[in-house]
Amino acid sequence: MLGSTGPTVAEILTSHQSGSGSPSKTAARVADDIAARGDDGTWITPVPRDELLAAARELEARPGARMLPLYGVPFGVKDSIDVAGYPTTLACPDYAYVAEVTAPAVQRLLDAGALFVGKTNLDQFATGLNGTRTPNTIPRSVFDDNLICGGSSSGSARAVALGQVPFCVATDTAGSGRVPAALNGILGWKPSRGLISTVGLVPACKSLDCMTLMATTVEDLDLVADVIVALDENDPWSRSRGPHHAGTAIRVGLPAVDELDFFGDDAMRTAHVAAREHLQGKGFAPVATTIEPFLAAGELLYQGPWVAERLVEFADFLAAKPQSILPVIRDILNSGKRFDAVDVFRAQQRLQELRARVGRTWVDFDVLIVPTIGTTFTVDEVLADPIATNTTLGHYTHFGNLLDLTAIAVPAGTTSDGRPVSLMVIGPALSDDVVLASAARLIDEPRAPLFAHRLHVVPQEDRR
Amino acid sequence: MLGSTGPTVAEILTSHQSGSGSPSKTAARVADDIAARGDDGTWITPVPRDELLAAARELEARPGARMLPLYGVPFGVKDSIDVAGYPTTLACPDYAYVAEVTAPAVQRLLDAGALFVGKTNLDQFATGLNGTRTPNTIPRSVFDDNLICGGSSSGSARAVALGQVPFCVATDTAGSGRVPAALNGILGWKPSRGLISTVGLVPACKSLDCMTLMATTVEDLDLVADVIVALDENDPWSRSRGPHHAGTAIRVGLPAVDELDFFGDDAMRTAHVAAREHLQGKGFAPVATTIEPFLAAGELLYQGPWVAERLVEFADFLAAKPQSILPVIRDILNSGKRFDAVDVFRAQQRLQELRARVGRTWVDFDVLIVPTIGTTFTVDEVLADPIATNTTLGHYTHFGNLLDLTAIAVPAGTTSDGRPVSLMVIGPALSDDVVLASAARLIDEPRAPLFAHRLHVVPQEDRR
Repeated sequence: MLGSTGPTVAEILTSHQSGSGSPSKTAARVADDIAARGDDGTWITPVPRDELLAAARELEARPGARMLPLYGVPFGVKDSIDVAGYPTTLACPDYAYVAEVTAPAVQRLLDAGALFVGKTNLDQFATGLNGTRTPNTIPRSVFDDNLICGGSSSGSARAVALGQVPFCVATDTAGSGRVPAALNGILGWKPSRGLISTVGLVPACKSLDCMTLMATTVEDLDLVADVIVALDENDPWSRSRGPHHAGTAIRVGLPAVDELDFFGDDAMRTAHVAAREHLQGKGFAPVATTIEPFLAAGELLYQGPWVAERLVEFADFLAAKPQSILPVIRDILNSGKRFDAVDVFRAQQRLQELRARVGRTWVDFDVLIVPTIGTTFTVDEVLADPIATNTTLGHYTHFGNLLDLTAIAVPAGTTSDGRPVSLMVIGPALSDDVVLASAARLIDEPRAPLFAHRLHVVPQEDRR
Repeated sequence: MLGSTGPTVAEILTSHQSGSGSPSKTAARVADDIAARGDDGTWITPVPRDELLAAARELEARPGARMLPLYGVPFGVKDSIDVAGYPTTLACPDYAYVAEVTAPAVQRLLDAGALFVGKTNLDQFATGLNGTRTPNTIPRSVFDDNLICGGSSSGSARAVALGQVPFCVATDTAGSGRVPAALNGILGWKPSRGLISTVGLVPACKSLDCMTLMATTVEDLDLVADVIVALDENDPWSRSRGPHHAGTAIRVGLPAVDELDFFGDDAMRTAHVAAREHLQGKGFAPVATTIEPFLAAGELLYQGPWVAERLVEFADFLAAKPQSILPVIRDILNSGKRFDAVDVFRAQQRLQELRARVGRTWVDFDVLIVPTIGTTFTVDEVLADPIATNTTLGHYTHFGNLLDLTAIAVPAGTTSDGRPVSLMVIGPALSDDVVLASAARLIDEPRAPLFAHRLHVVPQEDRR
């Protein structure tokens, strides 16, 4: 299958606001759909049917609720993010705890009338890009049951791709929001760090973690972003959104195809080259460039000491209950112990050099377009060689967070053998609107320059 | 003595441009002054008299040189910064090497007609705030031969305070440019990180290092800044200067005096309170605030892993020639080895929290004014207790670089027992012009809002 079969945020809103549908009817459809599929590894903790319907009815009974910007729109939440009353498991049952406070980003959605449907599966501790690193059922790509779902936000991507929910709140530390989007043919947007509060997220690498959104249209991302993007004084990385894109031509940096690695996947290479050719006539001005400094930063993440940052959160649990952690995750966490303080400062100095180099490239173009993933893997391939395949999956995503970029995975059809193809649009920090505008152009979706200000109802005091 | 007895940059320029003086005459005066004092610990490598005079004559013979913005103005350079043909010693003879390339910041001064007078003394490896950590003669404060000179830019501050040169290029990683300025009654400006290229500086903590300027008037700092501030693609932290201050009232945050620590020095406390009262009528609007989040960041530097960053540069030398390093410096460098990668990430996460808190305080005021140092020490006191006294000296300066601030030490008279008093004006990154304007008001120096654009001759292409 290709992309979602379910209604979009915009369609659901229209239906609820016109009265042709209702939050209760939507809730019932979602609950039925989840129940009908059984445990396919998408959800770790779905909200029970009766509770979901009760929440929908409560919403319908709330005065003025119909005017809320996400009235009755169902959504899923990656199971590393707190929702009060539900367990946060991180796909590690012995780590799990029942959250007492809802993450403020999720709370904003609830306050806007959105319907929380459940917690979605992930690679344990959000450590992985393939989706197989879970003690739960391993989710598969919606394209092919042999294909990995991608991770770490595996269940979130699958839930959206299946059309169960029109959007999910996930995360991205080195590609966790973009790789599973690519493998399931949906949009996966990693906003600039700090746009969406990470309070209530169990950190992977706190200095790199971003909340992300998955959806099937840019319009939906805009509708959700207008609610969820907000300053939060409790998030030290919090910052305001950048300017809106004026709708002009977008200069797109394109590395030479020879620079791009498809890891021997000729079908993917052919599909990528073809997808690039579709840029013509869509409001892009191509600029030849190099991906070299970007990849060098990704290399630094892969070989460098950032893995040790995961131990800020998980060192105590690793020491107390090593057997509760999947062996591959345990090995990764333990690998962080071999780095000393000097390693970190040396790597950060090197990173600063690369940041400066990459920073100068944005003078020449507005966004960079590369593959989101250079190839795909089957579940069996990943289980046979879990580290190398994972590294391959992150080739184009590892550098994004380190370099403080914003990026979006955009579906671009399939390979000749039916696997999903994804273009990644990347821009500098706070150029999110240019990146979203680029995504809309790529999928031929109309987008007014100031679309984001047309529909929603957000109090003015929140628009800082 | 109080402040400089020598001519300012502006006076020297006027003299040279009018013909009443000349670079040769100035060079001879400086060389005579340095020779007359003998080795007082100010200079490590003064330029020999004949070479200095030859350089002055060469300059005089250069066509058009008289129009250069620093024509014949003598200056000193801290001996951790490269000047081609001269040894860079870092006050460690076994580490010394003869530089082959002049640091671009210094080269800009030379290109602007300034006369390089020599390399100034420092605390070894720029590690220290007291000025006693040198195998060379220990420099003393110009106020009292028993008093420390302050460090690590000890010789630079002393050379300016003595009036031998009107300005020096020094550095500041945790106070090294401000503490010696305070102890010698001169201005010590730590610009925002990245305004002055650090290429050609042997790093202390590369991520925190700033080049600084010492002078006796804000006009002189402006004249030199107009030449030396420039983007440098080889400095990964390089960035453009912020906006000029419009000359309006400056909101100054003032912590409660009870929050300020003078370490039992009641005379300093009294003098500070008196200096604060002089803010009235000088264009400041006082705002009560707290220094707590600033000090918490300083505490983090003192107790945290940043000391390990010094090992990026010095680990090899420490391993190869430990006996070539002063014991106190060796102990400090070795202390960096006890931190692992997790310590760094944890401390940086905590720092990010404090950065966010401090960032929000700038909504309420433009600059913060606190003491530069809470008390003074004699050379004997520091030698008897080198670590604790050094920490005390950095109480108000340690946080500045970690929090990415700009700051200036401003002389404010003396204590009742004749020791130097210094106010420190602190602002957020890129608010340098507000900080400089504040300093001018504090010392009753007139300063036009766009002063910096009136006098100099800098090519337009350099004003990025």
